Amino acid sequence: MEFRIAADELKKALYRAQGIVERKTTMPILANVLVNATKNGITVTAFDLDIGVVSEHPAEVAKPGAVTLNAKYIFDIVQNLPDAQVTLKKLANNYVDISSGSAHFKIVGMAAEEYPKLPKEENAPLVQVSGNTLLEMIKKTQFAISSDETRYILNGVYFEPQASGKVRMVATDGHRLALIERELAGDFKLKGGVIIPRKGLMELKRLLDEAPDAECHLGFAENSALFKKPGLTMVMRLIDGQFPEYQRVIPKEGEKVVLVSKVRFLEGLKRIALLSADKSYAVRIGLEPNKLLITSNNPDLGEARDALDIAYKGGDITIGFNARYLIDVLTVTETDEVSFELGDEHSPGVLHAPGDRSFTAVVMPMRV
Amino acid sequence: MEFRIAADELKKALYRAQGIVERKTTMPILANVLVNATKNGITVTAFDLDIGVVSEHPAEVAKPGAVTLNAKYIFDIVQNLPDAQVTLKKLANNYVDISSGSAHFKIVGMAAEEYPKLPKEENAPLVQVSGNTLLEMIKKTQFAISSDETRYILNGVYFEPQASGKVRMVATDGHRLALIERELAGDFKLKGGVIIPRKGLMELKRLLDEAPDAECHLGFAENSALFKKPGLTMVMRLIDGQFPEYQRVIPKEGEKVVLVSKVRFLEGLKRIALLSADKSYAVRIGLEPNKLLITSNNPDLGEARDALDIAYKGGDITIGFNARYLIDVLTVTETDEVSFELGDEHSPGVLHAPGDRSFTAVVMPMRV
Repeated sequence: MEFRIAADELKKALYRAQGIVERKTTMPILANVLVNATKNGITVTAFDLDIGVVSEHPAEVAKPGAVTLNAKYIFDIVQNLPDAQVTLKKLANNYVDISSGSAHFKIVGMAAEEYPKLPKEENAPLVQVSGNTLLEMIKKTQFAISSDETRYILNGVYFEPQASGKVRMVATDGHRLALIERELAGDFKLKGGVIIPRKGLMELKRLLDEAPDAECHLGFAENSALFKKPGLTMVMRLIDGQFPEYQRVIPKEGEKVVLVSKVRFLEGLKRIALLSADKSYAVRIGLEPNKLLITSNNPDLGEARDALDIAYKGGDITIGFNARYLIDVLTVTETDEVSFELGDEHSPGVLHAPGDRSFTAVVMPMRV
Repeated sequence: MEFRIAADELKKALYRAQGIVERKTTMPILANVLVNATKNGITVTAFDLDIGVVSEHPAEVAKPGAVTLNAKYIFDIVQNLPDAQVTLKKLANNYVDISSGSAHFKIVGMAAEEYPKLPKEENAPLVQVSGNTLLEMIKKTQFAISSDETRYILNGVYFEPQASGKVRMVATDGHRLALIERELAGDFKLKGGVIIPRKGLMELKRLLDEAPDAECHLGFAENSALFKKPGLTMVMRLIDGQFPEYQRVIPKEGEKVVLVSKVRFLEGLKRIALLSADKSYAVRIGLEPNKLLITSNNPDLGEARDALDIAYKGGDITIGFNARYLIDVLTVTETDEVSFELGDEHSPGVLHAPGDRSFTAVVMPMRV
């Protein structure tokens, strides 16, 4: 293997690998990337046995071949090269010579044959999707994914094509839920929904963020997802199991509905949560005629309250929430106003854009 | 105590306090700032028993008085106020009401009488100094301060007025030394040098960074330093002891002297240190006719080398260094070229600007 490549191209490939390779693993080769040079250029593959990314790059290949190299070290080196071009050459015993301008590195690699094989992707019917829409759907649900590893099914986002042709994405950790429905034209040929794991979703988000306007394709085969954009293929195993019946958690319409300024609500929550007990973010939200009150108190520090002017004529209510959960939703809300719906003291709160439930968040109350 | 103040003024005062107050201390009041309102405005004092900063700010004082408040919480609150103005009012039992626009906080404080007293500053003859020069002197020595707490004397920078009227600042951790000599006009009335502790120096740097062109005064009394700029007074205890005889460590002139491009040397060191053994930053520097070589090797990873073109006709030498120490010096060097002097394999390396030893760094060699 011997090729010459622009350092920036190699850097881009290795940047894509950083989130995937495992730093601490019982299989040392999983800390590596597979570099494969063919007459068409090179590919750099990162794989953690669940998620694999293959990145294709133009290069002047003098001699085809393959080797694996530690993803972190080679990335560090490529970020510190003196020249815009770099040459990689495989030596005996999987050593690789890396030369750029005045600098020379001789790095120990591992045999390409030992690198685990990515799952085959043949049966996935690919659907062209808007990268921007997919990115929006990820950003508006990811915060509600459960990080409780004992609740494996909830460690991802439910991806559920609808009869309408739209796609719904749902995440919940049992305390809050986020649901978004958007047009992602095309038939994914799925019988029901699938669960995309958090790490895969985060990597997908990173790849979409690179160039959200690029032509993107998404598809699903037996228990795996496939994503393609020019010069890049990503495969990932899906979470195996049945996502809970999330519809039952979403209240139809709250008795008490108010329109609130997103910015004022967001800043008020951040401010008042500063005095929540034990950094729990516990705050009380109160509705009274034409006022939304946010209060907190901390036995060691003191108490805080803020009041927002709203148009409200219903009955008084005071209900506890984890301010963090409301802040997460408001942070990704794009409208100036948000509709905030409450039932009684024991019912969840619901947030959505005024007159538009296509992005809806449900937050369970807490005892404060 | 009751006063109204611009939130930005209060934020500035509290920002200055953040580096000084102790978060984890056996004396809870040291986590607080003392807020004192007089007819002239307010002062905010932070003190850790060694370093004290008193910050003066204009305010509309309705009722003079004083109280202490947790520095971190009050800073968080002031950063999150809805309005540009804020009113602080002391209530019974050292509670303080903080009101700004729609937001109200009631915070528990501690009595002002319990706040420790700052050392008196009367005997310090103040000398007007250039903030920019003092800042330069700190930046060019701080990296060499020892962090070894058992070597208490070396946990600061030696400040030594010279017979010439200039001032020398020196720091060393036993492995490297940095010395800078600059004009700081005026008579400090010191018998010898004094040692300014690291934390005080870092706070002084932060205060200078705010506005390096402000009128600054520096003075020394019995075992304490005093710094003043408009609206601000800082006092700090000095390190008590005899700074080592640093002059003996500085070689007169190396046998082997080369001029190197600062950027190329810096980048080369960073690059080659990537492959140093166990992240030790150990590299070898070699001189041979018209070449400076930087090499490293790591038994687990491989090896690296870079070569810089230089004008050199002396004998060959290879010598080990901690690249970090050289990088620290080159990072604060402002000239395009740097003079690098070596003796034999066991002698320290010396770095300074070409033809100018007013900023000189000495780095001990290491066995590589």
